[in-house]
Amino acid sequence: MWFRLHPYLEVNPMPSYPGVSQHVTRRLPRYYHHLTELEKSGVERISSREFAEMIGFTASQIRQDLNCFGGFGQQGYGYSVAILRTEIGRILCVDKSHPAIIIGAGHLGSALASNMNFNYCGFRLVGIFDADPKLIGQEIGNCIVRDIAQLKNFCTQYNPQIAAICTPSRAVPELVSTLADLRVRGLWNFSQCDIRSFFSGDIVVENVQLSDSLMNLSFNLNNKLEEK
Amino acid sequence: MWFRLHPYLEVNPMPSYPGVSQHVTRRLPRYYHHLTELEKSGVERISSREFAEMIGFTASQIRQDLNCFGGFGQQGYGYSVAILRTEIGRILCVDKSHPAIIIGAGHLGSALASNMNFNYCGFRLVGIFDADPKLIGQEIGNCIVRDIAQLKNFCTQYNPQIAAICTPSRAVPELVSTLADLRVRGLWNFSQCDIRSFFSGDIVVENVQLSDSLMNLSFNLNNKLEEK
Repeated sequence: MWFRLHPYLEVNPMPSYPGVSQHVTRRLPRYYHHLTELEKSGVERISSREFAEMIGFTASQIRQDLNCFGGFGQQGYGYSVAILRTEIGRILCVDKSHPAIIIGAGHLGSALASNMNFNYCGFRLVGIFDADPKLIGQEIGNCIVRDIAQLKNFCTQYNPQIAAICTPSRAVPELVSTLADLRVRGLWNFSQCDIRSFFSGDIVVENVQLSDSLMNLSFNLNNKLEEK
Repeated sequence: MWFRLHPYLEVNPMPSYPGVSQHVTRRLPRYYHHLTELEKSGVERISSREFAEMIGFTASQIRQDLNCFGGFGQQGYGYSVAILRTEIGRILCVDKSHPAIIIGAGHLGSALASNMNFNYCGFRLVGIFDADPKLIGQEIGNCIVRDIAQLKNFCTQYNPQIAAICTPSRAVPELVSTLADLRVRGLWNFSQCDIRSFFSGDIVVENVQLSDSLMNLSFNLNNKLEEK
């Protein structure tokens, strides 16, 4: 058999990767997207060199990254697109369907509810909440905006594992404490709040710092302009 | 004088840093945010150890990062908050005010127009565009949504340097080509499109891949759950 599962994967359906750097794991979604596109286009196998050209990494980096999780390729054959996609999906746990909620139904919360493919990323959106009476009851995406006062009852029933934080920063400290009490395990934080600076509880935080991203564009743009 | 400017900074107001890795430059906005908060709180100086505790990096990493740009600290004194903030702001070029536009006035474009502090990041928002007659003419943030058909005339007049791409993916290839022709130099790309795969022109791209971010949360959440 040209393809061999890492022995760890065979015995443990939801493995931890304690020795693998976040720099590596943060590249896996890129691989997953490109493999999804390749599979859609009917491509069955790909060499690390072709895959590297497609993604814009080096072939050596791709091989090193994938070797952290067991390799998945075979010399002279390359990678099976379907199998590699399935395996990376398993590592990222996007084959799960954990319930997710959005707190804040303003423009940003609405953008996530209407445009974001939660299923593709291992979640399913089960609710969106706001405190604004003008927003409560409106339909966004496939969800009706619920009153934030119903959050506790809702969580008892649906047990959401993550919450996207799309509220103003001033509301975040109390909200995080409430969500942790309601056994929400992960936060997708779009606020400017540095949650770790005031909350030491056991919760996974993924920050989306849009101003960091815009500053990176500023840096790269201005240094590019300077080169001319 | 305890503080000495890097000689390069003294002679070149908009320097390039060809030897500095993107891993380092991508940490600068974090430093800048925390220094802004410190300055607001009236803190005048901070040791690398205290600064490290605040940000969640090691003191050694902070010193190494800042040494890439000239250091800015003095042994036994630490960093002057105001000076370090100004210098990092200069490196990131957030002391500029380049004109910026948003293409797409749906939920996401509206979220950026209403919530995003462009000025803080080195830009000023001068326009938002859409093709949808229901959106054209609406006021979002301080901008009136303009008809995308006016884009060319607008760009000739205002010369925007960057555009935030908040359109459906199918519209992106033609849009990128149009924007490059209109001498837009940078793209803040919120679409799933991999712009580099179809556009080889001279434009700086900063991708905001929300599905990558959500997949990272999936990975970290599930590996955390597994630990228990």
